[in-house]
Amino acid sequence: MLFKYEVESNERECLIDITKYLYDAIKKAKVKNGIAIIYCPHTTAAITINENADPSVREDIIKFLSYLIPKDFNYKHLEGNSDAHIKSSLVGCSEVIIIEDGKPILGTWQSLFFAEFDGPRRRKVYIKIIEG
Amino acid sequence: MLFKYEVESNERECLIDITKYLYDAIKKAKVKNGIAIIYCPHTTAAITINENADPSVREDIIKFLSYLIPKDFNYKHLEGNSDAHIKSSLVGCSEVIIIEDGKPILGTWQSLFFAEFDGPRRRKVYIKIIEG
Amino acid sequence: MLFKYEVESNERECLIDITKYLYDAIKKAKVKNGIAIIYCPHTTAAITINENADPSVREDIIKFLSYLIPKDFNYKHLEGNSDAHIKSSLVGCSEVIIIEDGKPILGTWQSLFFAEFDGPRRRKVYIKIIEG
Repeated sequence: MLFKYEVESNERECLIDITKYLYDAIKKAKVKNGIAIIYCPHTTAAITINENADPSVREDIIKFLSYLIPKDFNYKHLEGNSDAHIKSSLVGCSEVIIIEDGKPILGTWQSLFFAEFDGPRRRKVYIKIIEG
Repeated sequence: MLFKYEVESNERECLIDITKYLYDAIKKAKVKNGIAIIYCPHTTAAITINENADPSVREDIIKFLSYLIPKDFNYKHLEGNSDAHIKSSLVGCSEVIIIEDGKPILGTWQSLFFAEFDGPRRRKVYIKIIEG
Repeated sequence: MLFKYEVESNERECLIDITKYLYDAIKKAKVKNGIAIIYCPHTTAAITINENADPSVREDIIKFLSYLIPKDFNYKHLEGNSDAHIKSSLVGCSEVIIIEDGKPILGTWQSLFFAEFDGPRRRKVYIKIIEG
């Protein structure tokens, strides 16, 4: 079963908690055991899992990535978003999460995030559920 | 169903478009809905998804990664390719793609790439199709 | 089928070979063909695949990552482990491995590692087997 969601980012770079979409897809799929693939169909964004309890963790990740991979560099691509493309390949455009007894296996501190690196934009996220 | 492909790199570092292999595997598997796992069995290469429309994006990714993770550093491994091992772990040796109605879900700008970090070499890529 | 393992790290940052857990899960699941998802439910650790033949590769990866993403920086999170959170998102908290004829497809030099970035700690690893 495949589910499609929309995410709206309000900044150029931010982590948006989409854990609720994961719960929604699993509930609608009525699957007890299996896996969920969370997929971002964009080349200047990504999917990641990290801490949501303290919002400063999200800030540190976004800020450090922008320091590490600067927007302005000797890039050849003329759209001014090569940094976002590089971040997308490093963070990765998908995550796989295990479903057990109708619930995603997430650690105590883990939340699922849409990582925007070239917003603000309206973005898509796919969640595919595989039973097994 | 499992499919095996070969990739030949002509440079030390480059991104090689292997999207055609993904379409080939899905077609041969005759699977309508499911997922495809694209796997690189090498420790100095990786699999990634990014833009192919403007070839300068690929160039920027490769060049920036080489700037960020230099070939020459105070490495202990004597083969001169520790940079390639590090890039492999950061970019990651696999990708998962959703199959819907017999086609891979790829965003408008997304292509699938074999990332060579220690070529030129002849490399293998596995594509596994799971129905569901 | 889902399997749970424990990993104990003795240093703040290290790569621990957990390939034996992958073989153990596949054996217990009695699955001939399919995939294995290896999942780390922690936000300051990760799962990666790289070379184990020469232990200096592991050392180079850990040391270079600590140079690239320093422990001390202008971070906002007060627990002193923002570097570990960033590394977790870059390396990624899961891997997917193909199972063929009852064995994992791993390249000649590939081993599976638990990447500890904020130890020493006792950690969990989940391995989910999907047949197909």
